[in-house]
Formats: sequence, C-alpha cells, structure tokens
Amino acid sequence: MKVLNVVKIGGNVVDNPEALERFLIMFNKMEGPKILIHGGGILASEMSATLGIKTVMKDGRRVTDAETLKICTMVYAGWVNKSIVAALQKIGCDSLGLSGADAGCVPAKRRSPEPFDFGFVGDVNPAEVNSGFISSLIGRGITPVFCPVTYEKSGNLLNTNADTMASSIAIAMSHHYYTRLVYCFEKKGVLYDQANEESVIPLINTEGYNRLKKEGVVTAGMIPKLDNAYYALEKGVSEVYIKEWTAIAHKAGTMLKL
Amino acid sequence: MKVLNVVKIGGNVVDNPEALERFLIMFNKMEGPKILIHGGGILASEMSATLGIKTVMKDGRRVTDAETLKICTMVYAGWVNKSIVAALQKIGCDSLGLSGADAGCVPAKRRSPEPFDFGFVGDVNPAEVNSGFISSLIGRGITPVFCPVTYEKSGNLLNTNADTMASSIAIAMSHHYYTRLVYCFEKKGVLYDQANEESVIPLINTEGYNRLKKEGVVTAGMIPKLDNAYYALEKGVSEVYIKEWTAIAHKAGTMLKL
Repeated sequence: MKVLNVVKIGGNVVDNPEALERFLIMFNKMEGPKILIHGGGILASEMSATLGIKTVMKDGRRVTDAETLKICTMVYAGWVNKSIVAALQKIGCDSLGLSGADAGCVPAKRRSPEPFDFGFVGDVNPAEVNSGFISSLIGRGITPVFCPVTYEKSGNLLNTNADTMASSIAIAMSHHYYTRLVYCFEKKGVLYDQANEESVIPLINTEGYNRLKKEGVVTAGMIPKLDNAYYALEKGVSEVYIKEWTAIAHKAGTMLKL
Repeated sequence: MKVLNVVKIGGNVVDNPEALERFLIMFNKMEGPKILIHGGGILASEMSATLGIKTVMKDGRRVTDAETLKICTMVYAGWVNKSIVAALQKIGCDSLGLSGADAGCVPAKRRSPEPFDFGFVGDVNPAEVNSGFISSLIGRGITPVFCPVTYEKSGNLLNTNADTMASSIAIAMSHHYYTRLVYCFEKKGVLYDQANEESVIPLINTEGYNRLKKEGVVTAGMIPKLDNAYYALEKGVSEVYIKEWTAIAHKAGTMLKL
C-alpha cells in the first residue's frame, strides 16, 4: 500500500508569510502523495476585529454566528486557501484548494445547540468523506489543500475545527492508502517536561498514553489533540506524528501508534 | 459532440440571495454538462467600503492594489464561490468551486503597467486553460463553478474580468464539446431600441453585428461585451447567448453566431 501524508498546519505558520513560504517548500519535498489541511484562526480573528465583530471562543473553539461564518469562509476558503494554492503552483506542486462543500468532499452535521450553541459549527463523520474523489485527484498528481469549512446537506456552510478536519480526512483516506497524519505544532512534540523544549517523547503507544495521562505528564491542553490522534489510529490511520512545522521533512517529533 | 453550457452570472444575481437561489434552481435544470462562472463585484466594493478601502474603477475595470486583491479573493473565491457550491449541493447538483490557480485551471499574465497600471489584474490566454482537468471533472458528473481569480506562474493571485474568464474557459472547452456560452445580463438581450425592453434582437451574425455598430444601434457599453462574444465564436465556441438570468432555461435573448 502506498504511503499518503496528511499534513495539518495551524495559525502559527499560516499567519506568517515567510514561515508559510518556507513550510510549503519543505512540504513540496515530501515524497509521494500528500494532502494539506490548514487553519487560519488568527487571520479570521484579525478580520473580525477590523470589521468590529467580537470573536467569542469557548473551550478553544470559535463561536460562529452568521457574520463570523462569512468571515471564516472569506479568510479560510478565500484568501488563505488560494494564496497557498498559488504559492504551491509557483514551486511546481500542482494543487487544488477545497472546502468540504466542493464535490461533497467533507459533509458535516451542525452541532446541537445543547448544552452550548456554537452557531454554524459542524462535526464530521469520517465515513461520509468523499475519499473516492480525493483519491482521484491524487491519482492525477494533484495535491488537495483543504480549508476547515464544511457544509450540511441543507445548504449551510459550517466552520469546523482544522484538527478534526485533518483526522476525518486521514481516516477516510486510510481505506485507500497507508496513511500518516502529521500535526504541525508550535512545539517540538509531546514533551516530558513543559519547561524543557528538548524533552520530546519520541514514541507513545496507547498504553504509554494512558500512563502519561495518569502521571499528569500530558497536560490538559494536549489531551484533546492526543485523543483526536488516537481516535484516528483506532479508525484506520497507520501513524500520527506531532511535530514542529520546521521538522516536517525530518524524523523528529512524537510518533503515536496504537 | 455533446453540448456544454458555459454560463456567466454577474453582480445583479450574485449579490441578491433570493435571486441567486432562484437562478441556481434554473441552472441545475439545464440539461447536460455545464460550467458556472460568477462575478461578485458589488459585494467586493461593499467589503472595501466597510474596510475603508476606496474602490477605483477605470473603463469599468477594478484597479486592484494588494489590499483590493485580498478583498476580491476573500469575496469571490471565499464567500460567493463556497455559498454557490453549498447551495448547488443542497439541490442535488454536485459542484466544485475553483479559482484559476486550482489545478492550474486558468493561468494568467499580469497586465502591463503601461499605458495604465491596473495592479494585480490578469489577462488569460485561452490556450493555457487546463481544459483536460475541467473535462475530467465534468466526466465525473461534477459542475465546475469558477470565480474570477486567476494566478501567474510567479505565484501571485490576479483579479480577472468575469466575462473574459467565461469566454476563455468556453474557448478552451470548445475542443472537447459543442460549446454554448451564455452571458446572463440585466436586460432581455441586445435591444434595437434601448427605451423598449421588448425590442430584443433574436439573432445577430457577424455581418449583422457590423451593420448594427455602423447604424449606432449597438451602444458603446455593449461593444466590449459583444466583441468578447465574437472573439469566442471565432476561437471555436459554437453559440453565444446574451439573455436575462430569469430566462436561462428558455429560448430567449439574443443569439450570436459567426
């Protein structure tokens, strides 16, 4: 089975043009088929501020009213997505920008307003991802670039967490490829000691993860990310990496396995 | 040869949610393969005004500095394009939103700053349109939806006139299909008498067009649109229609032929 890299980059890369250009050159050098999923939250918050719309976060997630949805769609699917695609074309990587609505790639369900109403926020069922179409793009030598905007069948666009978008796509693609999900992150990986950037844990399996949680080594902020990663592994993804974006091309960071 | 409809809608439809929904239902009912190209200029001008950026037009074209390019990309490729795609998915039309940068579909050349510097504005050579990829989407039953954003090989996004985008794509597709280019317009077609909305000229050929120009029946504002249409016909498009958007599904408007 061919290896497919599904790479997620977040705001710390997307919001910095020089970092983004450096990252894309490294990304383009990764061998074999690949998919990029990007965030853009900092730029969306900046645009909201410029337009005088208050950004409301709850548990690290953006509360998305109609105005905020419009801003997220403009920033993620418009400016960030197309800038990345044009920058990849420049360096010879034939890429195609997609939201979840395009070719029905990533349908979602609007999150229940109970116990808390996040507004136009969608959750993805990986079984509904159109992996056949995504594979056909890869088969043509095209690199899909996804922004974290999805849609529901009733026609609404929905804002979706980019980490979840990445894991859902990786799970769906694991039926076609040996799939490696790579979360690019502001730290070098999962750390033994938060105060020591060099204390990266190179490999964690399920048993080790449970032990690290019990010992309190893995902190509250990391738990959703790692739970997400283990969910992807349980659902068919072969490997998950958590690493710094500058190390995308190297053996580095934390590798998670079942 | 199969018939392909290449339909262009402008601001008067895009900027009005009810009109857009009505239009998309009619568009979806058109038989056979089709491509949609949309504008969004009024929304871009509104967003510029909200952000305190002055809209500068010259000969009906937007002068596009870096800030305006960002706004156009956000509005056209982000909000308008993805809203249309989600609305089409809702009514069972599997569609895919594209800028010219995606899969290298529509490369462009930045317009020379002489005699007038339009900024980040691109002109398209129809021979460079990636008609093979667009055909492959159509072959999968997908309706491509293009926004008028292109790119140059050096990595810049460029703003492109939506009429030109439509004719360039139609010309390129005419190698694969019997191609009908349909410009949706605020009037019922080309009129004999500007004061009489019902005086639609049903058919114009090249000879007739030259006569109408000489007689002054075709007014200055229409000439670039019609020249664009005749250029498309000369380059391989089989039929061009100019009609009101509400008549998209009917035999109506003005048909142009060589």
